Amino acid sequence: MNGDRQAITVMGLGSMGSALAATLLDSGHPLTVWNRSVSKAQPLADRGARLAATPEEAISASPLIITCVLDYDALHSVLDPVADALTGKALVNLTSGSPEQAQEAVTWARSHGIDYVDGAIMTTPPGVGSPEMMFLYSGSPAAFETHRPTLAALGDPLYLGSDPGLASLYDAALLGLMWSTMTGWLHGAALVGAEQTPATEFTPVAVRWLTAVAGFLTTYAVQVDAGRYPGDDATVDVQIAAIDHLIHAAALRGVDNALPELLRTAMQRAKAAGHGSDSYASLIEVLRIPMQGTPAGLSPTRPRRDDAV
Amino acid sequence: MNGDRQAITVMGLGSMGSALAATLLDSGHPLTVWNRSVSKAQPLADRGARLAATPEEAISASPLIITCVLDYDALHSVLDPVADALTGKALVNLTSGSPEQAQEAVTWARSHGIDYVDGAIMTTPPGVGSPEMMFLYSGSPAAFETHRPTLAALGDPLYLGSDPGLASLYDAALLGLMWSTMTGWLHGAALVGAEQTPATEFTPVAVRWLTAVAGFLTTYAVQVDAGRYPGDDATVDVQIAAIDHLIHAAALRGVDNALPELLRTAMQRAKAAGHGSDSYASLIEVLRIPMQGTPAGLSPTRPRRDDAV
Repeated sequence: MNGDRQAITVMGLGSMGSALAATLLDSGHPLTVWNRSVSKAQPLADRGARLAATPEEAISASPLIITCVLDYDALHSVLDPVADALTGKALVNLTSGSPEQAQEAVTWARSHGIDYVDGAIMTTPPGVGSPEMMFLYSGSPAAFETHRPTLAALGDPLYLGSDPGLASLYDAALLGLMWSTMTGWLHGAALVGAEQTPATEFTPVAVRWLTAVAGFLTTYAVQVDAGRYPGDDATVDVQIAAIDHLIHAAALRGVDNALPELLRTAMQRAKAAGHGSDSYASLIEVLRIPMQGTPAGLSPTRPRRDDAV
Repeated sequence: MNGDRQAITVMGLGSMGSALAATLLDSGHPLTVWNRSVSKAQPLADRGARLAATPEEAISASPLIITCVLDYDALHSVLDPVADALTGKALVNLTSGSPEQAQEAVTWARSHGIDYVDGAIMTTPPGVGSPEMMFLYSGSPAAFETHRPTLAALGDPLYLGSDPGLASLYDAALLGLMWSTMTGWLHGAALVGAEQTPATEFTPVAVRWLTAVAGFLTTYAVQVDAGRYPGDDATVDVQIAAIDHLIHAAALRGVDNALPELLRTAMQRAKAAGHGSDSYASLIEVLRIPMQGTPAGLSPTRPRRDDAV
């Protein structure tokens, strides 16, 4: 059954690396695995993976090497001594890191004749193998195209471009969106929770609302690219008036207002920059200019009713 | 054609009130409108609405009065002098305000024998009339049930409970979620934009990612209600490590880091409270305790690599 399937090596068998390896095994690929501590490799060996004794043996087993280790320090400590064994092979690195670390890795890979693709996994280990989950890739277009059918077993592969830093840049941007969204939702859950509304009652409404918000993002993306932010639907001025209701309601209920107050400050900076009648998308103009310290008088605990910047 | 349709009065014809009135006209309801300045009422009169000369005349025309004015001050200045005309009628108030203002309004309404429903419109004026758009209602269950078929013409009516403050509390919570999500998305768009990726290229990926994030919220809602936050998928410690990549990448690209740094501070507070191995949902515990000032040494402009709280 494995005859026509590509041989693959997975290096690094933490919870994510193990999920990757298990999914590739399930899809019928001859699989070689390696991990610094061999105990984590045993469950995969029991299911038919070949256990490599050394990184060099792991690399020599397959034309495609997938790495998923703790961080770039761990990556380099494993691969640097065996870089020559990787020459002519494709290296798909799914280790989390910064765009700059991916850039350094590609420089290193090029100097050794390695075809480098950087990737970011936009799901948790249990989500690996679901076709709706996104795997972001950037770097060598040739290596990506060659191995796309194999990578598709892990999740939906999205190729972002030849700049190897793009996958981790998107990863950082998307995680930032996730944390912002989750924290905004938790703030809302704390707010309605103060009136004995369970989070499980609030959340279906919040999830449905996010669909509408996604529609706003799609509209606003066009405005961001055009650098023009017509406030046809709702202006920054309208949002500033509305956020005071949130801050007031949260303060009365003992809910931390640091997040809404930061958002109001960003709105007020946009207004001060002349965007009061523009849409919320105009806030990107002030996000591109780092703040010079916290505005005087901004208290994270008290509700503020003034609109001064 | 209007024979079996309920007569309705709409008071307040700003862009939202006009959209409500136009939608009710389209659905065949005999409609009476009133606005402080009559010029805004003329387009509706041209389409068949009856123009009331005074608030009292507007109220006497229908058993259901829908108000949508600038704020509660405007609402009281219009309705207080004619409160007796409202006795025995249903008042559905879609004016934006705080839960406390809705509570005050219901006290006022009860004292005049008015059946009061408070509402929040979770869309922009062009979205009024779309069955997928949410209209949130709370207050008199009898008035809501009686007029539900009429209100359904405006959007999908969701009844939250008899506490009249719930609609505006949800409204505030959902707008907070929207601002958090939009600002997180703008931060991401600024980040990838620094590498010449257009927002219109980033946003479809971001929108798809929000679907995955909505799945996390659904999982975490159960944890919030249980007060237990098992970190099976991703722990606060893992998120703290990951957010440093975002802050570092943004700082290098001249993108304001106030939002990610606030999020990191919230994560660090959760860690300090013993939630390092718990899921992100555990942050609700620290959101319920207002911050005592900004942590010493927290600079909103420089990337920080330490994890100290």
